[in-house]
Amino acid sequence: MSDRRTQIMEAAVRVIAEDGVRGLRVEKLAAAAEVSTALIYYHFKDRAGILRAALEHINHRARTYTDAADATDPRAQVEHMLLLELQDTDRVRETSVAWGELRASAVFHPDLRAPLCATTEAWNADVETLIRRAQQSGTVAPTVDAGITAERLTTLVEGLSERWHSGSLPLPRARQLLTSAIELELDRA
Amino acid sequence: MSDRRTQIMEAAVRVIAEDGVRGLRVEKLAAAAEVSTALIYYHFKDRAGILRAALEHINHRARTYTDAADATDPRAQVEHMLLLELQDTDRVRETSVAWGELRASAVFHPDLRAPLCATTEAWNADVETLIRRAQQSGTVAPTVDAGITAERLTTLVEGLSERWHSGSLPLPRARQLLTSAIELELDRA
Repeated sequence: MSDRRTQIMEAAVRVIAEDGVRGLRVEKLAAAAEVSTALIYYHFKDRAGILRAALEHINHRARTYTDAADATDPRAQVEHMLLLELQDTDRVRETSVAWGELRASAVFHPDLRAPLCATTEAWNADVETLIRRAQQSGTVAPTVDAGITAERLTTLVEGLSERWHSGSLPLPRARQLLTSAIELELDRA
Repeated sequence: MSDRRTQIMEAAVRVIAEDGVRGLRVEKLAAAAEVSTALIYYHFKDRAGILRAALEHINHRARTYTDAADATDPRAQVEHMLLLELQDTDRVRETSVAWGELRASAVFHPDLRAPLCATTEAWNADVETLIRRAQQSGTVAPTVDAGITAERLTTLVEGLSERWHSGSLPLPRARQLLTSAIELELDRA
């Protein structure tokens, strides 16, 4: 991705996290990204194009902090990768709020569903791969269904994140619920 | 709740499920409920009052279909109650979409957070009570933490519902993920 494109997408995630999808106007994004509206139209064509690209960019952003979960043990990597989504840092909170908001918007805007689904599947697949590696290394039982477990854990992370952001669940409790869920999922015989 | 109040709230849930919280204008709600805007202002004072009341009403609506989960075995009741949230009927889908939309809106509208939190806690408590009853009847192990388990399962239902409504998870798969989660949570020794 070109620097300018990245710069616009970073601003888009920030604007969505602050004001929601409905708050994302091209003029406002141009001001936040410090570029012209013409450059935004050149890169993303229209508002729908911006939102689709923002979904991809969120996946890319999340990878930059979850890849830091470079524990050598693949089972520990699963835990780190998922728990890194529930961190009280500006960058994680912003990414997570924007992701939740785009997901919620897709309920009413069908054109967001295909990119949302692709990003969700990429995340599920990343977690599934780590669980399979943990199975190969003997730290997770071979009877665990890696696909189902990965999909359920990422769904739980989304549910916990949304309760966190909407004020129904304090972050330490969200982390506790996730930690014990991971144990429960991965420790069964 | 008076008949007129209920009539307005039923229309509010329908309008939110169709067009989102941003689509809820008092004039539109009046038309959908077939009442005057004056009557809406009389009952709910303002738009924020409508949204707060809608959150309570959603809890009431969900109870009308989840209470139908009147299996005699409390453990079966837990399963029925949670799975009834993932049903492809107009009423359940409408309630679930509106609930997700209000939750997503609370991220950006702090005045929705207290009623959202109260409704969430009431739901958690209902599930927790059923799990405790199942423990007393001997169908769930006494070592299961009823509070944590209830909170995690309701969070998972929300995450699954949102993926369902936003097109990232087909309903049968969502039900499968929930069914096996309930087994995993309740069957541990």
